[in-house]
Amino acid sequence: MNEFDIIAKYFAPLTMGHGALDNDAAVLEIPPGQELIVTTDTLNEGTHFLKSASAADIAHKALRVSLSDLAAMGAHPLSYQLSLALPDRPSAQWLTDFTDALMRVQEAFNIFCSGGDTTGIKGPLSISITAMGCVPTGGALTRSDAQEGDAIIMTGPVGDAYIGLHLLSFLSPDLTFFPAAAVNDFGEGAESYFIERYYKPQPRLDLIDLMRTYAHAAIDISDGLLADLSHICQASNLKAEIHMHDTLFSPQAQKMITGGLVPAQELLSGGDDYQLLCAVAPENAEAFLAAAPGAVQIGHFTGALTEGEPPVTLLDKDDQSLPIKHTGWSHF
Amino acid sequence: MNEFDIIAKYFAPLTMGHGALDNDAAVLEIPPGQELIVTTDTLNEGTHFLKSASAADIAHKALRVSLSDLAAMGAHPLSYQLSLALPDRPSAQWLTDFTDALMRVQEAFNIFCSGGDTTGIKGPLSISITAMGCVPTGGALTRSDAQEGDAIIMTGPVGDAYIGLHLLSFLSPDLTFFPAAAVNDFGEGAESYFIERYYKPQPRLDLIDLMRTYAHAAIDISDGLLADLSHICQASNLKAEIHMHDTLFSPQAQKMITGGLVPAQELLSGGDDYQLLCAVAPENAEAFLAAAPGAVQIGHFTGALTEGEPPVTLLDKDDQSLPIKHTGWSHF
Repeated sequence: MNEFDIIAKYFAPLTMGHGALDNDAAVLEIPPGQELIVTTDTLNEGTHFLKSASAADIAHKALRVSLSDLAAMGAHPLSYQLSLALPDRPSAQWLTDFTDALMRVQEAFNIFCSGGDTTGIKGPLSISITAMGCVPTGGALTRSDAQEGDAIIMTGPVGDAYIGLHLLSFLSPDLTFFPAAAVNDFGEGAESYFIERYYKPQPRLDLIDLMRTYAHAAIDISDGLLADLSHICQASNLKAEIHMHDTLFSPQAQKMITGGLVPAQELLSGGDDYQLLCAVAPENAEAFLAAAPGAVQIGHFTGALTEGEPPVTLLDKDDQSLPIKHTGWSHF
Repeated sequence: MNEFDIIAKYFAPLTMGHGALDNDAAVLEIPPGQELIVTTDTLNEGTHFLKSASAADIAHKALRVSLSDLAAMGAHPLSYQLSLALPDRPSAQWLTDFTDALMRVQEAFNIFCSGGDTTGIKGPLSISITAMGCVPTGGALTRSDAQEGDAIIMTGPVGDAYIGLHLLSFLSPDLTFFPAAAVNDFGEGAESYFIERYYKPQPRLDLIDLMRTYAHAAIDISDGLLADLSHICQASNLKAEIHMHDTLFSPQAQKMITGGLVPAQELLSGGDDYQLLCAVAPENAEAFLAAAPGAVQIGHFTGALTEGEPPVTLLDKDDQSLPIKHTGWSHF
């Protein structure tokens, strides 16, 4: 089976009859009065996922993180372009698992594949997705419009994916963190719960209409809560104050924290959860929280950001400032 | 300098003030009455370009091949997303050369960078570009509308890039083709001429208005003349007849052929030239050729394609059929 046969058999069905692989490029219609939202995410084996990742894990993760960027901008998904660089001729089973998983994500979030490129690479598998979505013209959410006094609302817990990544890393030969065996002491199936949070984050596309109604600014938490909140602070030229609290974490992660397996603060710097962080006018915070089960207010934006000052202050239960060590992920 | 500093210093200027790197995704306006054209091309070191390729070579090649796909669809460029997976922390010189080259291509073809992802990879450099363009609604050129009797027009010579690739391969330790030293016997600077054709193909965006006026169908020659003509034949359900002739090749390549260094037929299967192949009604062929210097009519589409028949017939100067060995490139 050559490249063209593989595309026809496995990838063409992902275009959902849009015939997008028949030409040099896809033709897409943007509804009148809408703008196009475009985002690219690349995941490389050994850097963004482990060699042990299944075809389905890779497909889920890659497409879901791209969809999360659309959610952060308040955009409804349209289509995506898939670049897949494969180290070896893929097996029929791998291709089936990979494309089945993409199809499941497509169906869950109403998006189709509009094209891409399948290549060979003399190295690790690399997948890059460019996702496209639409917002009413002028309606895109950005990072730069948070207002002083706005409530900082997080749409769900952070830290689960970080624990999941550490559990996966434990399985790899050259890395050791906390022992995986200890994790299931904190609940039946805890291990698989965290790993699934890492590979299958939930892009919060269910909240985009709510966000467009109430949020002044938004970002998705890909680099870690502290890092991504800092991004909003820098873009909006504001400082932020947040409170350490149990409700920042899932019940499963809370057990790990109280059990002494992971420090709570470390979870604030762990990425990959893909919840949204929103700036909402204080008078609208209650309405937002009521409409978004699982969302919590974690703090608020204070005064203007001054050069050289740290943008985010983390307070403990007695309103004492906690030291912040590192704030997130950088590739180099 | 971390990932964010590198992006701010080297990549942000490529967005030409569109501020596309400030948020999770870019916001793009599609002019009313236009459709979006989207195409993705991925190039991996060791597969699509050699380890000896300079930063500028890689930048030119990657962006130019994507632009060629827009040209084939008759689309004016809008913007592109850049995914760059780097094996090592790049040097300031590499980043400068790479982004300077992208900027030169941007200026030449009126496109800007709307975002992307810069990642680390434990393996070869991988670059993936998703280019976007616009056509008037319903005006995109495809592969499937060639008509019986249409002239097959090629917008320029093929084979130069194939010779360039072989020259480059000669420089790599484990490959030997014809000796590079012999090439300059066929003209001062011949070697660098061919290598430049390989790394800096000219996307024929200068011809898109002409194509939209006269062409029924089009494709860019990326996989080789015979392979790409076959793609039009399959999509349009037609057979094609083309003639072997000197005018298929550049004067430089003709010297190589007559000098016995490369067989003419092999050049018909070599890819990477990125000229366009168009189906034009016979009564418009002359007008097309007059408006497109360098374009040549190479044959015409004959009757309907029958299952199992080869789509393309290659004729010599006496109208005798020549055998066709292989038709182009497949990754697996």
